[in-house]
Formats: sequence, C-alpha cells, structure tokens
Amino acid sequence: MKTIVKHISINKGMTVNELVNQMSNSGVFGAGRISKAVDIFESMAKDKNCMVFLGQAGAMVPGGMKNILIDMLKNKYIDVFVTTGATLTHDMAESIGYKHFRGLSDIDDSKLNKKKIVRIYDSFMPNEVYIGMENFFKEHFDELSKAKTTKEFLWLVGKLLPNNQSSILKTAYQNKIPIFCPALSDSGIGLMIWGQSLRKKGLNLNIFDDLNEIINLSWSSKKTGVIYIGGGVPKNYIQQAMQFSKSADYAIQISTDIPFFGGSSGADLREGISWGKLNKNAEYANVICDATIALPLIYAALKERI
Amino acid sequence: MKTIVKHISINKGMTVNELVNQMSNSGVFGAGRISKAVDIFESMAKDKNCMVFLGQAGAMVPGGMKNILIDMLKNKYIDVFVTTGATLTHDMAESIGYKHFRGLSDIDDSKLNKKKIVRIYDSFMPNEVYIGMENFFKEHFDELSKAKTTKEFLWLVGKLLPNNQSSILKTAYQNKIPIFCPALSDSGIGLMIWGQSLRKKGLNLNIFDDLNEIINLSWSSKKTGVIYIGGGVPKNYIQQAMQFSKSADYAIQISTDIPFFGGSSGADLREGISWGKLNKNAEYANVICDATIALPLIYAALKERI
Amino acid sequence: MKTIVKHISINKGMTVNELVNQMSNSGVFGAGRISKAVDIFESMAKDKNCMVFLGQAGAMVPGGMKNILIDMLKNKYIDVFVTTGATLTHDMAESIGYKHFRGLSDIDDSKLNKKKIVRIYDSFMPNEVYIGMENFFKEHFDELSKAKTTKEFLWLVGKLLPNNQSSILKTAYQNKIPIFCPALSDSGIGLMIWGQSLRKKGLNLNIFDDLNEIINLSWSSKKTGVIYIGGGVPKNYIQQAMQFSKSADYAIQISTDIPFFGGSSGADLREGISWGKLNKNAEYANVICDATIALPLIYAALKERI
Amino acid sequence: MKTIVKHISINKGMTVNELVNQMSNSGVFGAGRISKAVDIFESMAKDKNCMVFLGQAGAMVPGGMKNILIDMLKNKYIDVFVTTGATLTHDMAESIGYKHFRGLSDIDDSKLNKKKIVRIYDSFMPNEVYIGMENFFKEHFDELSKAKTTKEFLWLVGKLLPNNQSSILKTAYQNKIPIFCPALSDSGIGLMIWGQSLRKKGLNLNIFDDLNEIINLSWSSKKTGVIYIGGGVPKNYIQQAMQFSKSADYAIQISTDIPFFGGSSGADLREGISWGKLNKNAEYANVICDATIALPLIYAALKERI
Repeated sequence: MKTIVKHISINKGMTVNELVNQMSNSGVFGAGRISKAVDIFESMAKDKNCMVFLGQAGAMVPGGMKNILIDMLKNKYIDVFVTTGATLTHDMAESIGYKHFRGLSDIDDSKLNKKKIVRIYDSFMPNEVYIGMENFFKEHFDELSKAKTTKEFLWLVGKLLPNNQSSILKTAYQNKIPIFCPALSDSGIGLMIWGQSLRKKGLNLNIFDDLNEIINLSWSSKKTGVIYIGGGVPKNYIQQAMQFSKSADYAIQISTDIPFFGGSSGADLREGISWGKLNKNAEYANVICDATIALPLIYAALKERI
Repeated sequence: MKTIVKHISINKGMTVNELVNQMSNSGVFGAGRISKAVDIFESMAKDKNCMVFLGQAGAMVPGGMKNILIDMLKNKYIDVFVTTGATLTHDMAESIGYKHFRGLSDIDDSKLNKKKIVRIYDSFMPNEVYIGMENFFKEHFDELSKAKTTKEFLWLVGKLLPNNQSSILKTAYQNKIPIFCPALSDSGIGLMIWGQSLRKKGLNLNIFDDLNEIINLSWSSKKTGVIYIGGGVPKNYIQQAMQFSKSADYAIQISTDIPFFGGSSGADLREGISWGKLNKNAEYANVICDATIALPLIYAALKERI
Repeated sequence: MKTIVKHISINKGMTVNELVNQMSNSGVFGAGRISKAVDIFESMAKDKNCMVFLGQAGAMVPGGMKNILIDMLKNKYIDVFVTTGATLTHDMAESIGYKHFRGLSDIDDSKLNKKKIVRIYDSFMPNEVYIGMENFFKEHFDELSKAKTTKEFLWLVGKLLPNNQSSILKTAYQNKIPIFCPALSDSGIGLMIWGQSLRKKGLNLNIFDDLNEIINLSWSSKKTGVIYIGGGVPKNYIQQAMQFSKSADYAIQISTDIPFFGGSSGADLREGISWGKLNKNAEYANVICDATIALPLIYAALKERI
Repeated sequence: MKTIVKHISINKGMTVNELVNQMSNSGVFGAGRISKAVDIFESMAKDKNCMVFLGQAGAMVPGGMKNILIDMLKNKYIDVFVTTGATLTHDMAESIGYKHFRGLSDIDDSKLNKKKIVRIYDSFMPNEVYIGMENFFKEHFDELSKAKTTKEFLWLVGKLLPNNQSSILKTAYQNKIPIFCPALSDSGIGLMIWGQSLRKKGLNLNIFDDLNEIINLSWSSKKTGVIYIGGGVPKNYIQQAMQFSKSADYAIQISTDIPFFGGSSGADLREGISWGKLNKNAEYANVICDATIALPLIYAALKERI
C-alpha cells in the first residue's frame, strides 16, 4: 500500500502518450494494464538484444489495423511475425487493389450473399477479390512453386505483389522479416494454392522446415519478447517456440478471451511460466480489450516515446 | 458499400482526438464504436436543448476515473447524475482525505483482512475510511437528517464535505447537478445512516419523491441524451425515466456486459426503442470495453473538440 | 497432482445428478465449478444452522426461471431473498395473469414499439401488463400504504395477489421468507407506487429499516451461506450484510461477469475474504455461465440429492 | 407473440433430456439455445444424407471431454473431425498411459515449473509425457514417415497407439473417420516430428492434399452439417470447406467468444450465410457457454433421444 491511485486528468489537446501516462498514474484495472503494456513494449523495442515475436489472429485488416502492423514491421519493432491465413488473404486482397468497406452487422445476410458481398461482423468485402487473387496466382504460380516453406512462399508473394498499395506481405519481404503462417491451407490463399495445384504440378511446403526455422530463431536469441494480438495458432506457435529460447523476458497479450475456460487463446501469460515459455521474472501484461481499441492506443503512445 | 475502411495511421505525438479521428476513418469493430461515441457525446454536449443523464456503476473511483466524472459535472456536460452507493462511498472516503492504493489481485485475501485492507480487484482501500466516515456522520447527522430525499441528502453531504479534496459529491452540490442514488442503503454511506439511526432519531428518505423528481426532469426536457458507464440500477433507473421523456435522442453505453444473457446491464441500446426509451431515429453507440480504457479515450477526444 | 481428471461419460437416460457427478469426476474448468456449486448448495441446504441468502439480478422471469426460484423458496432452501424491482415486476405481471413470450433479438424494435410489445433480449412482454398492474395498485393502495418497509410492502403485495398463478411474491409471503428489494423505485412496481402517490397520500417506505432487518438476520445467524445469481445491488446488499455475520461459510456465484474490470458484480467471491464477508475457510464456487443454463442444471442435481 | 415462455420445472431424478425439454419450453436466452442445439444435433444425426463436420478447439482433453468426443466418433454422429494439434497431443499423451490432473489456477507457476508440471488453467500435466511421446515416435518413425498427408499420418498414429487406453486418435482410425489438423506443426506432436526429422530423413505432409480431401468430402455430400466446439482454425477450416458444399443445412456453435470484435471464432453462424457457408434456411444455434458445461448437457440429451 505504497502507491496511491492518482485519478486520470484529461487536458484539452493532450497527446496519446500523455493520456497513457495518466493511465499509468491510476495504475489499476484495464487502464493500468494498458500503461504497463506500453512500458513493456518500449522496453522490448529499445532492448537491442531482444528478438520480438508478434503473433496476430483476428480480422485486423478488415478492422482497419493494417497500417499499424505495417508500421511495426517497417520500424523493426517486430523481428518475427506469425499470423493467420485470413490476415494474409485480407492483406493480399488490398495489396492488389481491393478494399474493405464499412457495413452493418444487423443486416440480412442472404441479401449480401446475392450481392456477392461477404460479411466480417460490420466490415464488408466484395467477393470479387477472389477473382483478382486467382489471376495473381495464375500469373505467378511457376515462380511461387519454387518455395519450399511457407515463409519462402510468403516472401515470394510479397516480392511479386504490386508496389502501389500498402501491404503487410510486401513490407515483410522488403524488410526481411520472417513471416510464418502455420495454417496457411486454412485461408483464401490456401484455396488459391489448392486451385492452382489442380491444374498444374502441386506446390509442397514443408511445414516442419518452417517450424525448424522459428525454433532456431528462438534458440539463437539472447533475449526474447512476445506480443499477442488475439490468440489461436499464432499465439500458440510462438509460445511453443519460446520453450526453445531462454524463455521470454517481455510479454504483452491483447485479447478479449479470458482464462476460465481453459483454452490457450485466453490463458493468462503467467501460465507460460509453468511451461518455461515465460521467464519467472518477466514483465508481462494481459490487456483484456478489443484490439481495435487497445492496439492503436498502445502503439500511438509507443511511437511518441521512441 | 460506399465507405472504405481506411486504416488507422499513427503519427508521433498525435493528440487523442487525432487518434479517435483515425478510428472514425476505419469505422468498424470497437474502434468504430469509440469514434461514434465521441461524435454522439459531442452532439449532446453542444445541443442546448438536450438534458444529458449519466448513469454510472462499477468501481470508477478505485479505478482512477473520479476526476473525469468531476470534470464532466463541472463543465455541465452532464445535467443529471445517477450512481451507486459504492461510488459515492468511495468518493466520500477520498473527500475526507483517504486514498485508494494500487494493489494486486493475485494475493492472499486473508492476509489483507488481517491488515485491515479491503480489495477491489487490484485496487486497495484501508478499512479505516469507515472510521473517518463515521466521525463525519456523527458530527453532521442533525443537519443531514433534515433531508427528505436522497438527492437532498447527497447535496447536503456535498455541502458539508471539506473543500480541500476533489469530490464528486461536492462538485454536484456546487454545480447544482441533481444526483440520484436509488439504492443508497446498499453502500457504506447507507451503513453510516443506519448506524446513526440506531442512536438518534432515524433518517427517512422518500425514494418515491426522488423518482418523482427524475421523472419530472425527463418529462420537462425538450430533448434527452443518456450515457451509461456500466449497467445495474443507474442505467435502468434512467432508462425508465426516459419513458417519460420524448424518448432519448442520443445514447452511449460503455460496458463489458453483452446482450445474450437477457439482463438489463448488457442489453443493446437498440432494445430501448421497443420500450419507447430510445427514439427510433436516435444516434447510439454500444461500446463494449473496460470503462477505464474507453472513458478516458472518449473524454479526452471530446475535450479537444469542444 | 493426486486427483486424475476422469473424463465425463454419458449414459443414455442418465439423470441430471448423474451428469453432475460425472462433472465432479472431471473436476476442472466450468464443469468442475458446476459440480462444486452443487456440493456447496447441498451442504448449505442440509446445514440446519445455516441461514441462506439468495441475491438475484437479471431477467430470470422472462428467462423462464421463475418456478425454480419459487421451488427454492417453498422448500426453504433459501431463508432470505434479495432481488431487483424488475424481477418482482415481471413476477407480478405473471401473477395477475400476463405472460412472457418467446421472441427474437434480430428484429425491428420500432415495429415492436408500435405493436406495444417490449423486448427483453429474445423474450417479449406485452405493454398492457402495466394496465393490469395499475388496476391492482389502484384497488389495493389503501392497504398497501400501511407498509413501513419494502419487505412489509412486498409481503402485502404477495398476500393480495390472486392465488391462481405461480408467483414469487406470493410464495415468499406464504412461506414468510423475508424479501428485500433495495432499489424498488427502479422498477415498474416503483412506477406504480409513484403513480398512486400522485393521486393519493404517498407511500413512504423506510429503506434503512429494511437494512436494519437484513443486518439483524445476518448478525443473529449461527452460520451463513450466500448464493448469487447475477450481480448488481442484490449481491452487494447481501455482501455488506455478511460483514455483520460471522462471515459466510458457503458461497456460490453464477454470473457471466468477470473480475478484471473491478466491478462488484464480476468480483471473484474470494475478494470477499479481504472484507470479512467470506470466511477464509469457506467453500465457494464462481460459476461463470449463463444462469438460464447453470441454474436449472445445479438445481436439478440438488433436488435429486436431497 | 404466439409461444409463451413456460417456466422450467425441476423434478427429482429427472433425466438430462427431461431437463433439456424443459429448457425447450422456456425457449429463450441460453436455455433456449441449448435446447435448440440438441434439436439440431438430433436432426443431423438422424439425417442419413447429411455429412457432419465437427470442428473442435480448446483444451477439451485436459478439461475432461475426451470420452464425449470418442463416443461421438464411435457412434458416427460425426463424419469428419477437424481439431488442433494440442487436442491430439493431449489425447496421445493419455493414449500412451499418461494422465491429466486436477490442479489450481491460483498457484505459483515457477514452483510448478521446478516440479516439471505444466498448467492448463486448473488442469495439470506432467512434463514427462513428452518423453513417452518421443519414445513412441522414435520407435515408429519409419512407418509414420510413409504418410503423405496429415490425415494419413494421424490415422497411422491411431493405428500404432496401444489398445489399452481410450483414445480419440485410435477411435478415428478404427472407425475410418477422416481427421484433419491444419496446424499440426503447432503442437507437441509437431515438435516430435520436427525432432525426429533432425536425426532421420524428414517427414513431409502435403497440407494442400488434406485441403483437397476435405473439399471433396464437402463437395460430394448431399447435405452437410457443422458443429463447432470453440473457434480457431478448426472452425474456419470447415467453414471454408462449406463453400464447396451446397452450404450447410445444420449448424451448432459452442463458444465463449462473441461477434463484436470481428474475429472468426466469435462470429455468429448467421454471418456464414453471406459467404455461402450456411444455407439461408438452415437451422442454427449459437450456444455462448463454456463447452465443458454445454457439451455434456447437449450430448447427454442427444443420447437419450436416439
């Protein structure tokens, strides 16, 4: 009982980091966790010995978070990126010129279906993106089929994408950030590969070589840090790689899932200490919040600090 | 499908409202709801014909939100305030000089009990606040017992509180903001009144006169707006008063509760249209987020705009 | 690491308690908490020295749980009942012959409003219940206005209600179960009292005399147990009464709210140990589940055991 | 407004299906969704033209649900099973004689780490399971490396596992239920394959051949039904396969995740109509509940009916 809860004071025109510093003054509940997450992210980003692994699941591209992810990659705040096939599919659709649109959730889905619009909660995507993607894969499949791992494949896609759109895949390629997608076949991109494989010689990506690569990255790091936006496979895949590191020294999780039901997605980061995934002295913050709110807030504060 | 999801861009040193404007550009998921809430709050605050009712539940004082509530009252963004006995008890404790402290949730509660510290998730409060409160009520009970309604009682408390601390109760009194607490007996303040009533002549507050007053406020308003931070009695009490208004034109709800279980706290604002509590053309936003994150964000953006 | 997680086995035609016993064999996650809750409820119900306090919030009558609550009261598994004005209003509506109906949540609320149907998630109520209630109160207000506390008032209502419908209020009256509603003015019944008070001499219920009564019940008990269905005022009102008992020996909470946001409704029962509300050696179970699923399951198992 | 909410009546010794039928009488909130899920499951199981796809994520084996999954497979209520690597790892550990244990969540994880116990919320697993698994893979790797797809690989594992334990993998093999695990490298089994690959010639599983197989199963079905226990990759992988069916006619989802944050795991089944994954006339139920509570309840009622 040493530190007083100082009430957050709002000043006209305050910057985001000034707001987060106020949250740090209060220090409890969700506001306290947000401010702690920024502190940890700052420590990670400034620690030159630390390799930072970002695991991301959930519809962050349809949700307007693409440029934040790209900015993280460009600034090398992130050294390794693990994501879902859906995120990469949404990113690829935008990379070749399509858009996501603001929609509604209270709507007749059968009407959307007739209009060839697919719904992602209150974000809409035109079905025609799959035509554009198919054309891309038709054109480039010979080159793409040289890839031996998903990481190589995704870098190749990034290389071949046009330059005129902001793109996670292209940014990862250009900045040589390893990008892993352990369940690539579970996505629109996966379906494209399947479609091309039917007509041409197939593509065979060795998922255990990908696994070998991320384990080596973890193994060879002096220190590691993890950031989870959502749970699912990306979180778990990094968590298991951490068992081959000296265990993570920094950890941030932004999720709306909670521990009580036993799943990996909602598990408290502290649980990782029992597994050797997280260092018992690590700094960690479980931010229980919609990532489209928490991530921009955290990232804007971080940028202001660095 | 007219409005593109524009991705949030983070600039170094951006202000909170610049961030919220970026959220407005993306416009979907939680970020979209935050930006919509700010727009609605701005419209309400600028609409001179609109009487704004704030309902607040949850541990906002131990959670560091007291000054935001006070600032709302001082700036008259709020015309009527409905809250819980717990909020008023926590506010009163701080008004007479006590503090809340940053604590831990993973802790042995029986040790806290021995140390006379009570826990509110990861916020701590020393048990001795009740001694200070008892002294206050002993000293002032004769004057306080003149009150005929909870609103009168709470204004009297506000009047009698010392001037040297920031205080919701004093601010409401000084600014003549009606303050309602429909379940005052369910709180530390309620226990204090009970304690004094045992030794002195009792205090009798007519809760139906309070009800009459809030109904009259609602009835006589040209337009009404509602803001709910948390659910519980404060939300429901305002909702039922709205049935006597021309139905609310603006509505914001910040809550972590959700509609699927049928309770009033988690009910979507839209449900109020069936009851005549919300106008069918009203602008409304259901922000599903920890209020200690969403409220400072929304309020800092609002202040910057006005 | 002594007790193995035994997998739940389902047998054709098994009884509910046989299922709960299987959940007891597994013993972890939500299933484990359900089985623990049944064990605790059984202990409470069989402990003749234990006074059991039930706090209930949420739309349990529109949700089809009325008869379970009535059965608990009839069987005296519950000694004291604390609830919301909404529950009592819904109960009263059914007690005078109205019904709730199965509806939809994805529906145009303005159409419902025109049809004079109000929505409680996917349960509907005809607005005309208020006419029936008004007639009841008009007819009986002289007798009702003799009540000095909400408990007396609610028993009087129970006494005066017709006998031909199942009714929480009547059952509580007939079985002399004290029934408290600390925020009665926040409800349809509250509005009825307000309406009658406008034309007749008012009704004045002393809420601090109610508080005195529940504190005396808690104070004078050899042992206490608490059951919370939902949070809100009913939970908190019992929790504060527990500070005047020897602290509760048994506790069950069924809620979809969670601790991380600091509010009383979602607070882990363990937190009560710091306050002296819960005994440090108490048996307690936090069931994080929709009460319309968990309560029938728990109660059917209990009935089978007793 | 045709169907009255009939209150659930509890009878001593009632069977689980009798309870679910009572929930069907009430028909609203979570109870209504549970009863609807049982109805849909029953329709699916009895519809000889319907191929049922089960997607399962979350720690269902450490959570005591293994035998329910096995029973579903044995009874052919399920025709295709998609799951996580974690579920298969936990199943395999038990298949070779290890156990999960009841633990605690409020515990010092660094002490568990020293004792070589890993924590899955309040379920514990001894770290030594990995030794047993490694021995199994060492012994059988030559045979296992003949597999060309994950489905073949998993059937081979099932074939080679001992007969003396109940096992999801063995049951799937024995009953020729196709079993897919799109992110197998993200698991203990994945790590075992990686470990063996380092010393021997590698194993290469063509994930796009798996994708081809599930698409063919979906494509060739007269009718399809889906059951999701948890979200993640298993749900999404089946959802994308449904785009190649005539769209699903039946759908059940048991999840604690909710739609508002935009992710696939919490998405309302209705959203699938816009994608052509779900038939616009399909019967579907979104059960928002801990699966360790909802699944045994639903499955016990189903078994009683069939």
